[in-house]
Amino acid sequence: MKIDILSLFPEMFTGPLSSSIIGKAIEKEILDIQLTNFRDYTTDRQNHVDDYPYGGGAGMLLQAQPIYDALDHVKDDRQGLGRVILLDPAGRKFDQKAAEELAQEPQLTFICGHYEGYDERVKERVTDEFSLGDFVLTGGELGAMVMIDATVRLLPEVLGNSASAPGDSFSSGLLEYPQYTRPANFRGMKVPDVLLSGDHQKIAKWRQRQAFNKTFARRPDMIEKRELSKIEKQWLQKLQQGRI
Amino acid sequence: MKIDILSLFPEMFTGPLSSSIIGKAIEKEILDIQLTNFRDYTTDRQNHVDDYPYGGGAGMLLQAQPIYDALDHVKDDRQGLGRVILLDPAGRKFDQKAAEELAQEPQLTFICGHYEGYDERVKERVTDEFSLGDFVLTGGELGAMVMIDATVRLLPEVLGNSASAPGDSFSSGLLEYPQYTRPANFRGMKVPDVLLSGDHQKIAKWRQRQAFNKTFARRPDMIEKRELSKIEKQWLQKLQQGRI
Repeated sequence: MKIDILSLFPEMFTGPLSSSIIGKAIEKEILDIQLTNFRDYTTDRQNHVDDYPYGGGAGMLLQAQPIYDALDHVKDDRQGLGRVILLDPAGRKFDQKAAEELAQEPQLTFICGHYEGYDERVKERVTDEFSLGDFVLTGGELGAMVMIDATVRLLPEVLGNSASAPGDSFSSGLLEYPQYTRPANFRGMKVPDVLLSGDHQKIAKWRQRQAFNKTFARRPDMIEKRELSKIEKQWLQKLQQGRI
Repeated sequence: MKIDILSLFPEMFTGPLSSSIIGKAIEKEILDIQLTNFRDYTTDRQNHVDDYPYGGGAGMLLQAQPIYDALDHVKDDRQGLGRVILLDPAGRKFDQKAAEELAQEPQLTFICGHYEGYDERVKERVTDEFSLGDFVLTGGELGAMVMIDATVRLLPEVLGNSASAPGDSFSSGLLEYPQYTRPANFRGMKVPDVLLSGDHQKIAKWRQRQAFNKTFARRPDMIEKRELSKIEKQWLQKLQQGRI
């Protein structure tokens, strides 16, 4: 997968992109990431990339020109841009389904806004606006990192243990059951007996039930959307009657 | 504000913490961030911090011991931990309200999970579980960065222009209206005439209307939750009748 990132702060990406999963994906040549500082494309003599908003108001806006010219350059250099993604509070909510969708793409280009906002005309070049959630960040960089991390870990061969990705929360439709590792007794807190029983069927059932109960308690919306199995319907009835 | 971050990949934070707003907050001594690699606290001879899950299953879990001991150390060193935050898909959805809440705290401690998960007993030390959204990340680091960025920008004197924060999306309850900066005509795309009119009342009304219409189109849930003004009720009626 080719990923291009247009940002005024490319140095923000150094740590996150070299660490952990993304770094390994780059090493394995599954991922090819290029950073472009769009300040390098400004035609402004003082190297400014922002200006006052028409009609007045606080703050400065990123101008369209440096972003357009940087996109043109990347498009030439990479023989295309793929999907062009802008992080915006008004965008489509980013979720696991979106990550799965993006993981199918051969190329993604992220535009990271900053300051108070950007000239609306930037959106003419954008194919997808995404929002991480209902909160405000100082720039698009962290949002782009989050989206890249969630997407890249889904690419084949990126996660060392190929069994890891599908068991996660959201892909199974339920939150994860509680997990424990050694020691069996840590500062007086003990691992549930069933997990030490060696009875794999019992363990599997306990885990399903725990995942279901936790999802019911914390994310009832996920239960509502779910097609319940026969046993889950029974569990739900019990939970609704307060009989856990 | 004091912030402690417990992570196996402290180097991931170098770029994001030194850039932009957060870097400035540290420089101004509004923010005091300490990174702790909890691998330094493992009692395992091979320096491992993870182990197989009891009851079987794919992947490795972070053990409670190194995290507990790192927390104990930070607690001593910093004379407390403040709110102890864990990023978990089952956690409370992080949003602007949560950021505003955290911005009131004198101290925050983030525990960044990694690998497939962590020993459930870690949660005994946690006061708040947060989730960024319904997607899976390879670790808690990016989530912590996002929460820190959203929170720190709300601290007094962090944003250079103090007028900037409140006008944002979500704090006003509406998405932002479109904004434009120079040039008035860029590659044939023109700035709306009203913004060049110099009529401030007309501009303010246009902006309110744009923000309202955009929110109606993209986030009707925000309109539903909103206490509408008289004029907004009229706009809503028109929108519902398809008469924009």
